[in-house]
Amino acid sequence: MVLGIDIGGTFTKIGLVNRQGVCRGSKIIRTEAHQPFDTYKERLKTEIDLLLGSHLERQELVAIGVGAPNANAHTGDMERPPNFSWGDRVPLVTTFQEWYRVPVSLANDANAAALGERYYGSGKDLEHFVVLTLGTGLGSGIIVNGKLLIGAHGMAGELGHVNVVAGGRQCKCGLRGCLETYASVTGIKRTIFELLSVRTENSPLRDLSFNELNGEMIANMALEGDAIALEAFKRTAAILGAKMADTAAHLDPQAFILSGGLSKAGDILLTPVVESMEKNLFNAYRGKVKVLISKASRDQAVLGPAALAWMHFERASP
Amino acid sequence: MVLGIDIGGTFTKIGLVNRQGVCRGSKIIRTEAHQPFDTYKERLKTEIDLLLGSHLERQELVAIGVGAPNANAHTGDMERPPNFSWGDRVPLVTTFQEWYRVPVSLANDANAAALGERYYGSGKDLEHFVVLTLGTGLGSGIIVNGKLLIGAHGMAGELGHVNVVAGGRQCKCGLRGCLETYASVTGIKRTIFELLSVRTENSPLRDLSFNELNGEMIANMALEGDAIALEAFKRTAAILGAKMADTAAHLDPQAFILSGGLSKAGDILLTPVVESMEKNLFNAYRGKVKVLISKASRDQAVLGPAALAWMHFERASP
Repeated sequence: MVLGIDIGGTFTKIGLVNRQGVCRGSKIIRTEAHQPFDTYKERLKTEIDLLLGSHLERQELVAIGVGAPNANAHTGDMERPPNFSWGDRVPLVTTFQEWYRVPVSLANDANAAALGERYYGSGKDLEHFVVLTLGTGLGSGIIVNGKLLIGAHGMAGELGHVNVVAGGRQCKCGLRGCLETYASVTGIKRTIFELLSVRTENSPLRDLSFNELNGEMIANMALEGDAIALEAFKRTAAILGAKMADTAAHLDPQAFILSGGLSKAGDILLTPVVESMEKNLFNAYRGKVKVLISKASRDQAVLGPAALAWMHFERASP
Repeated sequence: MVLGIDIGGTFTKIGLVNRQGVCRGSKIIRTEAHQPFDTYKERLKTEIDLLLGSHLERQELVAIGVGAPNANAHTGDMERPPNFSWGDRVPLVTTFQEWYRVPVSLANDANAAALGERYYGSGKDLEHFVVLTLGTGLGSGIIVNGKLLIGAHGMAGELGHVNVVAGGRQCKCGLRGCLETYASVTGIKRTIFELLSVRTENSPLRDLSFNELNGEMIANMALEGDAIALEAFKRTAAILGAKMADTAAHLDPQAFILSGGLSKAGDILLTPVVESMEKNLFNAYRGKVKVLISKASRDQAVLGPAALAWMHFERASP
């Protein structure tokens, strides 16, 4: 059994996963990214120990895989993650290795998600695809010739930070107009608040604070026909689809797989995304690039880190 | 010896190249992309026969490599090339095979250029880089883990058609605001004419028609301090550098290599490109991505197609 750990801006998911990708026990805890890392890690250890204790003998744990934002697979650290107050270098691999004395592998959260789709999900039969995780931020993982694209410095696939509008919305990374400031749960919340500022329709959205509002609420309101929520999805999808066309012009993929909180909106997001992507695609790619919604449910986010752990464990085994 | 053929929107270059990448004889002819393909191909055959006749016995020719815009390596055709009036499918591989009865390989012109840099040029010691050919249009070739990125349908690396401005300049491909409508020889000419329309400075540029003007003239005027030419380079570089930052966020490369007509401007282009790229780079990549100007001279454009021919010849040889 391996332990998969998916560290997101809002939630951390932990799960015990067998070689076939079946999750034997899991837990979701809040990340509290703005509390110190030491507080978080002690809380996390308690939860992991409880999970291990109730599901297996310690010696059955053979490896740990961790997915986290801005993770560098080469150093084993999270490096300057813009949505976390955990410092410039967060030593994840050494932390877990000291605790559990098993091999620990780290990947960018969205890269891990791409591996999860490749091994256990919608990417099982695909050799060339891009996973976009639309959560607190926008992460991405790129599969080329069946393998994860790593890049020269271990940091390929930061599509959340391609530019949408020069001088656009301030991003936590320091740049302006980054894709994730528009196309993510936080991005659509910003669009909702922009719309509430310039338009006059009444809407239940006017009763919610920025921090109260979440992606599921916006999706539900759009499903009920709320004009502001519908317009927010339309604008988000138009921007995301256009940028997916640009990504296709780099990689010529078979498919995009959308996952994360915003993807749970289903067709409200998917239909206008496909429309915008097709409109913006270079003619050589038109009609050739599928857009899929990930079938992974929330606790299956651990499957990506688990795939990473199994991959490294099997490579290391004689 | 192999024959390398580089088909550009303005010029076609042919050359005989040995295994070490030494060009033993070459010729440049005008492409006349708006004449019928049959006229062009007969003219091309005459020139190739002359070149072969004066440099080697027919049996010494072992393979042909062809680089051309919108070439599909899988089908052997150019497919709907936007800058050519040669129809929807231009059967290059079958044409050359019928004529010379040797193996013929085809690649997108910029993909071939990337192979040329990888085997014989500035990319010899690099595993991860992107070649941008700034000529009539903007082509690109992507090298990942030392190999050409091909994509799912044989069409990866069409960076000339990523979007710069929604609803921007009309591109020959049918889209609007494509990168090549700004960052290419044609793109900078369009910028010159835009500047001449909105500004009042006198400039020798006011004595030239759009068709007379070429990249070398603009570079020379910029070197002499012409305000319009300098501003055109500044705007071109700002856009190109920003889009290179987006490409880095996909691929995490070690370097970009700029080639083609516009790259001959050297530092007038390079300095503001690097400045704009660094300003727009996601922090994880800052200071890590080199920008090089290709050392390949105009007739060395055949080295890319020649590298392609040698690659396929050696793979096919027992």
